[in-house]
Amino acid sequence: MAEFFASPRVRRTPFTPGVEAAGVRGYTVYNRMLLATVFETIEADCAHLRKHVQVWDVACERQVRLRGPDARRLAALLTPRDISGLSPSRCLYIPVTDDAGGMINDPVLLEAGPDELWISIADSDLLLWARAVAFARGLDVEVDEPDVSPLAIQGPKSDELAARVFGDGVRELKFFGCGRFEFAGVRLLVARSGYSGQGGFEVYVEGGELGMPLWDALMEAGRDLEVRAGCPNLIDRVEAGLLSYGNDITRENTPLECGLDRYVSDARLGECIGGAALRSQRERGVERMIRAVEIEGVVPPCDRIWPLLSEGRPAGRVSSAAYAPERGAGVAIGMIERAFWDAGTELELHTHDGVRRAKVRAGFWNAA
Amino acid sequence: MAEFFASPRVRRTPFTPGVEAAGVRGYTVYNRMLLATVFETIEADCAHLRKHVQVWDVACERQVRLRGPDARRLAALLTPRDISGLSPSRCLYIPVTDDAGGMINDPVLLEAGPDELWISIADSDLLLWARAVAFARGLDVEVDEPDVSPLAIQGPKSDELAARVFGDGVRELKFFGCGRFEFAGVRLLVARSGYSGQGGFEVYVEGGELGMPLWDALMEAGRDLEVRAGCPNLIDRVEAGLLSYGNDITRENTPLECGLDRYVSDARLGECIGGAALRSQRERGVERMIRAVEIEGVVPPCDRIWPLLSEGRPAGRVSSAAYAPERGAGVAIGMIERAFWDAGTELELHTHDGVRRAKVRAGFWNAA
Repeated sequence: MAEFFASPRVRRTPFTPGVEAAGVRGYTVYNRMLLATVFETIEADCAHLRKHVQVWDVACERQVRLRGPDARRLAALLTPRDISGLSPSRCLYIPVTDDAGGMINDPVLLEAGPDELWISIADSDLLLWARAVAFARGLDVEVDEPDVSPLAIQGPKSDELAARVFGDGVRELKFFGCGRFEFAGVRLLVARSGYSGQGGFEVYVEGGELGMPLWDALMEAGRDLEVRAGCPNLIDRVEAGLLSYGNDITRENTPLECGLDRYVSDARLGECIGGAALRSQRERGVERMIRAVEIEGVVPPCDRIWPLLSEGRPAGRVSSAAYAPERGAGVAIGMIERAFWDAGTELELHTHDGVRRAKVRAGFWNAA
Repeated sequence: MAEFFASPRVRRTPFTPGVEAAGVRGYTVYNRMLLATVFETIEADCAHLRKHVQVWDVACERQVRLRGPDARRLAALLTPRDISGLSPSRCLYIPVTDDAGGMINDPVLLEAGPDELWISIADSDLLLWARAVAFARGLDVEVDEPDVSPLAIQGPKSDELAARVFGDGVRELKFFGCGRFEFAGVRLLVARSGYSGQGGFEVYVEGGELGMPLWDALMEAGRDLEVRAGCPNLIDRVEAGLLSYGNDITRENTPLECGLDRYVSDARLGECIGGAALRSQRERGVERMIRAVEIEGVVPPCDRIWPLLSEGRPAGRVSSAAYAPERGAGVAIGMIERAFWDAGTELELHTHDGVRRAKVRAGFWNAA
């Protein structure tokens, strides 16, 4: 693959100097921002993540800020999830659907202040959608992108590292619990969340100028914990069943097909955008579903969608895959047609580098 | 800069095999798709483009398809330009503005069939905006992304090459004229347009399976014309004053600030989205404006926004820049504050690699 060519359109982040100094080896682009993909190797990065603690530049999880008396009303329009549980101390994962029930993002919703919500987005311009809905419906809410850049602390030593920098209070946070914790005189929003199966935190850094001081403070405080710069790890997230918007989920999929049933509330389908389509699909039943897929042997880098066949018949597709050396097998996320989605079903995976044997699993390897 | 890490989320195009076989050296990501940035060197690519003819994979200019009785009504809502001149034989460059008049895309609008418009987009999810507006306003129009991938033919020998593959009829097309021309039994939409200062065509390839056959046919037919794989060239586009959405234009800018006055029709400001804000700005006058900027000496790669200062006072910013060896100087596109935008104004450009002397110019070097 050729070199990545940088330009202002693909934005650097407040943490890019730290990522570069740590010797990043691979980048992708996410929400038109740099996102590291590998530092040493995917396998070595994974092993370190699972043993120690890493600091990740996930500034590319941009915030869509909703400010004004109708902020909550707008958020409720955007998702079929019941958001009444949202509070300054609890954030929510929300599927966001278009008028046909198709997924247009799968972000985290946070209450950042009075009449101020943040939507910490996956890779699509949810800002444009939310802003169009707001003005077309005449809602009293401003929609914009603030200068907020998430930094993740992930791995089994995350509590220890976060406590050293933010105080012991962070240890008390429950999964998707959040609160304000002080760094350098600023009270930053910290949530127990993140895109790994190893646990940890995401810090919403307000003001780019605070980025490198926090990065450096974490690196300094975690020296004896063997802290390292890291990034979302392909093996780890596939084994944990963490879906990637744009890879495993697209506008062609509803939340019901993505295993997100529990975030689709019957009581909300009369109001939210896409609700009618979701109700109808829930009544009919879905025709395809996200499944864990095990692949025999070594797999090539999954840089495109791979079809799954069963004796020549289309059976689904794989959208994320990695070779997991500890298992001596490939791990993958697939969207599987109903006739083939039972655990144990054997399929042929057509990679761009030859056919592999694959098997549908009952569940992910390290699901939360 | 680190290696680019591919995944299905960042899509390959129907022409990627041709781009790879031609030895692409640099990629960027545009609308979540691969876009080549350099084959030999930017300087050598530019020299070849200006002498011969190149075939460019610009599939990343995705189409937002508007289908239905209200397709034109929706398009008219999206832009302050008068679109009454749109026809199957004439496409239009249209600024698209949000409710505050900020630019959210600067695409080309085409009439692809009865009640069917295509918006050939720059780098933002205009589909989400257009779809939200359509359903929130109750318009009778479907908004989706078809399997259409533009391929550009650019350079002084474009007419000759295009005529060999599509017939002499393409020679008759005027600038932004378009029509249907046959290749392999399919009548493809071809427009005289493209993102270079050298002239040429864009072919809207319907159906990915037609991609490589067309690529190969152009390469074969153009052998004696010294045809090569190419891509939008930084030097050429800056000298021609071709703005890049995401670099030179963002949501923070109105079309009036981007030198797009002629596409903002007073008569349309009462109806289109953002019209009130644009009318008010037109009455007040703009405070900053896109300008050509010449930079003394060699410039580093412009991978981030560079501030322009005048004796310490903020004077604007440069968002695209390249060293033009023939001039022995840097060429750049800047957004300049009113007090400094007169031709000849000398400024200090703060690159990430030191300060350079810069001068505002009256116009671009090779403006169309």
